[in-house]
Amino acid sequence: MTLNSIFSPLAGVIFLFLLAGCQTAPESLQGTGDLGVIVERATGSLALANTSQQQIVDQVEGLGDLSHASVKFSRDARYAFVFGRDGGLSKVDLLTGEITARILQSGNSIGGAISQDGQLVAVANYEPGGVKLFSSDNLELVADIPATWTDENGDQQRSKVVGLVDAPGNRFVYSLFDAGEIHVVDMNGATPELTRFTDVGKNPYDALIDPSGRYYIAGLFGEDGLTLLDLWHTEAGVQHILTDYGRGEERLPVYKMPHLEGWAMAGDEAWLPAVGRHEILIANKEDWALTGRIPVQGQPIFVMSRPDQHQVWVSFAHPDNDVVQVIDTETRAIVTTLSPGKAVLHMEFTPRGEHVWISARDSNRVTVYDTHTLQEVKRLESESPSGIFFTDRAHRIGL
Amino acid sequence: MTLNSIFSPLAGVIFLFLLAGCQTAPESLQGTGDLGVIVERATGSLALANTSQQQIVDQVEGLGDLSHASVKFSRDARYAFVFGRDGGLSKVDLLTGEITARILQSGNSIGGAISQDGQLVAVANYEPGGVKLFSSDNLELVADIPATWTDENGDQQRSKVVGLVDAPGNRFVYSLFDAGEIHVVDMNGATPELTRFTDVGKNPYDALIDPSGRYYIAGLFGEDGLTLLDLWHTEAGVQHILTDYGRGEERLPVYKMPHLEGWAMAGDEAWLPAVGRHEILIANKEDWALTGRIPVQGQPIFVMSRPDQHQVWVSFAHPDNDVVQVIDTETRAIVTTLSPGKAVLHMEFTPRGEHVWISARDSNRVTVYDTHTLQEVKRLESESPSGIFFTDRAHRIGL
Repeated sequence: MTLNSIFSPLAGVIFLFLLAGCQTAPESLQGTGDLGVIVERATGSLALANTSQQQIVDQVEGLGDLSHASVKFSRDARYAFVFGRDGGLSKVDLLTGEITARILQSGNSIGGAISQDGQLVAVANYEPGGVKLFSSDNLELVADIPATWTDENGDQQRSKVVGLVDAPGNRFVYSLFDAGEIHVVDMNGATPELTRFTDVGKNPYDALIDPSGRYYIAGLFGEDGLTLLDLWHTEAGVQHILTDYGRGEERLPVYKMPHLEGWAMAGDEAWLPAVGRHEILIANKEDWALTGRIPVQGQPIFVMSRPDQHQVWVSFAHPDNDVVQVIDTETRAIVTTLSPGKAVLHMEFTPRGEHVWISARDSNRVTVYDTHTLQEVKRLESESPSGIFFTDRAHRIGL
Repeated sequence: MTLNSIFSPLAGVIFLFLLAGCQTAPESLQGTGDLGVIVERATGSLALANTSQQQIVDQVEGLGDLSHASVKFSRDARYAFVFGRDGGLSKVDLLTGEITARILQSGNSIGGAISQDGQLVAVANYEPGGVKLFSSDNLELVADIPATWTDENGDQQRSKVVGLVDAPGNRFVYSLFDAGEIHVVDMNGATPELTRFTDVGKNPYDALIDPSGRYYIAGLFGEDGLTLLDLWHTEAGVQHILTDYGRGEERLPVYKMPHLEGWAMAGDEAWLPAVGRHEILIANKEDWALTGRIPVQGQPIFVMSRPDQHQVWVSFAHPDNDVVQVIDTETRAIVTTLSPGKAVLHMEFTPRGEHVWISARDSNRVTVYDTHTLQEVKRLESESPSGIFFTDRAHRIGL
């Protein structure tokens, strides 16, 4: 055999074929700033979305029980960390559509957070109650912090953990549902440093942190009002706010507790969903007094601010969950009521707010709206879509 | 020749070699959420930075005159648009380090902006005065808007354009230095729709827009104070603010006008650099009255808020430009004075604010600080570094 025989016509074809394969590599490079995921709860899958193309570009299966699942993103906006209800924690590569790591880290979990430096992923667990911290690189366990508390009989108990968020200074903040406590974990040192706030109110069920990472607010299931912790002044302890917004009024049956992570700020005011009422509450950020109530068409679930804070978009609980209402934050008037489909579960704004993506679970549909014209831009098919999360969250405190 | 001879040992080696070449492709995939660029003005190059690795990973040359250059990012956070002083507009691929498009679009330009939907890149030109809009895809000209105005003799003139920013609703806002006007261009329709605000003050020299995209504020070179345009209420026209902060005091020689794009918000207050004075001005966002002044060690140039708004970082004009001062926004005390090197030109916070990168031109150095401990984390060598820009700007209004 000679060298000439290698470069025969047929070998040449193979050579070119292989070269062509290599040459597609630069084509497959892409930025990750306009990517996102849609949780498909019925099938335990993630639809991968591109907000520039306004399309679903891939699907990732095998993520377990994704009812009530939430998602955080790695610092480089390449990986999604998916927190399943079954205690599953998965790391999904948005560029290849592969699950690069997956663990079952508890029996029952409810969301997570990623540290300010991007190195730690934290998971809030119901059973056994506590927080586990993992390396965002390979999901190896870094710390296991049981949510312990002492009951009225002096016995040590464990509590379900809810409302877990990241805070500046590589801290995590979360609430103990059974204990009525808020815990702050500082991960700056060699070992976790825990600060407890007790008697914060009966059964905190969810919480939020404001975009600056200063105010942690927990909603209470067991009593009216909310609990506020000012992380710039932890020495002052917690403060109860909006405690009497429902006094003297009849509370409707609550089909679904509002989500709090959709903190809506408009100027100096915070817009919050009222529990068991057809209204939005407005509190000023100075002293957290109630400064307004806006009647809406059902019990609000998500109350979310368009990035420019000129509109607040509201989704609702069953049986009024087939519409979304848009409120002008300045006039406080409802400017439109949209019908994105049956069982609207979540909304996500594109980073600068020109569009919003809305999932309608029972219509198997995600609808994209232009937030300026309030017109529909696109309909995308998706199997029982729920949460929608875009990668710019990687760069926001508390998201 | 037979097929067997193709799969001879030597051909097999080539085959494997080519396969190996292909297999490295997935390794080269990377997220773009933790990337950024450093402008190297003396060499007309960009250093490409990775904020997770805290390293400079590549260098891109051939970008022309980069004195006073600024950078915007594409919607997918893959491309940097570089606005050179010589009218050069370059599109740089952060993943390959290649210049994918470059044009000389005017004789003399001063910064640019990218539209809310990411499709348009706008450039502010001194000569000939006006704004040009290009497709962000291939830098093809979409619109050329001369900055015309009518002088006191009724003659049509063209003005230098400064303070160009993007605003929600696919608008651009900019100021006409010679005319004392602010123009708003709405790009929602088929053709640009222009709204003029005249008599806004003498010689606006730079401007900013707040993070919600509502307030456009231009600094005035020809008189004291600033001009405010509330984009939610353009019908109300402009308002002069902080007009008398220097009344009755002697103004120092101004070596360099402050930059305004580093808008610092802390709670409900805006922190701004005073012109020709060793102080920071604080105005409340309610009525824009002056509520405080903080003495600092020199004439402030950049006044920038850490993303959690708990600190404001200040750089200075010659001859006091070898230090940076850090102010606690709550106590208003200077908490530290750092020495990052000679001729500090710019600062950029990592998206969630755990670090800040500071360029010191005459020390050929970028220093990374931990904003929590205020300790130096890393020193990076860079040739005459000036502006530093990270890709999370792609997702922020006005950046």
